[in-house]
Amino acid sequence: MNRSGQRDKREESPEEFSHDTLFSGELSCRQHREGYRFSLDAVLAAHFLPPRKQARIIDLGSGSGIIALIMAYRWRNLGVHITGFERQQSLISLAKGNIELNGYDEICTIKEGDVRHILQHLPPESFEQLVSNPPFFPLGSGRPSQNREAYQARHQVAGGIEDFLYAASKVLANKGHAVFIYPANGLTDFLLAARKNRLEPKRIQYIYDYPEGESEARLFLIHCQKNGGAGLKTERPFYVYEKKNGAYHESMQRLYEPSSQEASF
Amino acid sequence: MNRSGQRDKREESPEEFSHDTLFSGELSCRQHREGYRFSLDAVLAAHFLPPRKQARIIDLGSGSGIIALIMAYRWRNLGVHITGFERQQSLISLAKGNIELNGYDEICTIKEGDVRHILQHLPPESFEQLVSNPPFFPLGSGRPSQNREAYQARHQVAGGIEDFLYAASKVLANKGHAVFIYPANGLTDFLLAARKNRLEPKRIQYIYDYPEGESEARLFLIHCQKNGGAGLKTERPFYVYEKKNGAYHESMQRLYEPSSQEASF
Repeated sequence: MNRSGQRDKREESPEEFSHDTLFSGELSCRQHREGYRFSLDAVLAAHFLPPRKQARIIDLGSGSGIIALIMAYRWRNLGVHITGFERQQSLISLAKGNIELNGYDEICTIKEGDVRHILQHLPPESFEQLVSNPPFFPLGSGRPSQNREAYQARHQVAGGIEDFLYAASKVLANKGHAVFIYPANGLTDFLLAARKNRLEPKRIQYIYDYPEGESEARLFLIHCQKNGGAGLKTERPFYVYEKKNGAYHESMQRLYEPSSQEASF
Repeated sequence: MNRSGQRDKREESPEEFSHDTLFSGELSCRQHREGYRFSLDAVLAAHFLPPRKQARIIDLGSGSGIIALIMAYRWRNLGVHITGFERQQSLISLAKGNIELNGYDEICTIKEGDVRHILQHLPPESFEQLVSNPPFFPLGSGRPSQNREAYQARHQVAGGIEDFLYAASKVLANKGHAVFIYPANGLTDFLLAARKNRLEPKRIQYIYDYPEGESEARLFLIHCQKNGGAGLKTERPFYVYEKKNGAYHESMQRLYEPSSQEASF
């Protein structure tokens, strides 16, 4: 997608894929035209917690690799390494291709596996940071007849939020940091599962479409710390658009700026 | 307090008490000068959920009776009845005096008791609506040497949020509605205890001091329903002041308008 969130028609690749770009064309991401396609949720999650130097980062349910790609692009000078963890073969191939396409082979790795059995694939407590845009929808909700890849990426076919938080707790080192983006109406379920898995919520931000009007928050971004102390900071709201049917809000637009602006993060 | 939140110096009663007014003088509330004194938390909680006609309402930890008084003033034409439940004798006397002072003897009753043993004082499932501004601070925090009445009203001397939610669940009828105001940094504890006591969070609103700047939310207002279905609505943020050191925000000011404006609620 270009900065206004539209697919860039000039850069299309063969029929099955679209070739989308971010950061004024500095990052490329191929996606299946009819499959799972990333949205701004991924962009928000990738930016919520800048990593420490040399951090080993895992992206749970990495899909086409978009979060890993954005983090690699944004913080490639910090010596971070990002592991994408994904169950669907079609998305794993795509993510591997995207990593190669951007030249991030040394920064990003994709691992195949199911979050419900994560320790069969990865060593325990082996990451300092985690990010995830987990499947949002309960089975049976939404349009089950839509594309199979997209359905599985968005629905809790292979694990709900409890499974994702359990897996996060297993692979995160003590005091490690986890970022999730999740629907605001699922807050209670999320916080219960987080506390149960010793991922203590430390910072939360609610995402609204725009500042005016009566509509409710759609999503929240949350930063949890494994075995962290209690005490949650509720940030100012985040607005995606300036107004109804308007352009991106300045806060959102900033997340699409190329890395010359990196100092602002 | 008058509308700007200042004590009205013209209406002082004998030394031990202050005589504060709301709604352009239409409601009076005597408070101990040196004891527990209500704040805008009570005003917010009293307005968050307009009651149904004839509703039996309970205010858990009613203090000087301020929430009961505001609800009586605001919705006296709906045939509601409000029971204040309070443990401290000095506050019970004060609340009873305030009820008499405003002529609300038929609308408000004060019951003495400890929330931890609420069913020794009140029949189970006997209210359709509940409101509470419970003690916020863990024992030992804050200034323990301050006035004893204020300390007990604000600190969890006789029950923390778990005890208040347990008591709420016991006295609320099935599908009954509860409103709480609580510090934003205690959100996780609150939601866990709410779910445990089958008080399902339905609507939440975060309270910020003012719209600009970087500071976090101070409080949240929440509406829970006993045995309600999952699914939480996160409202737009609520701002108390227009700006730093500014006047009340229009949303806050509206809560102090006399009842001629009642239709707006």
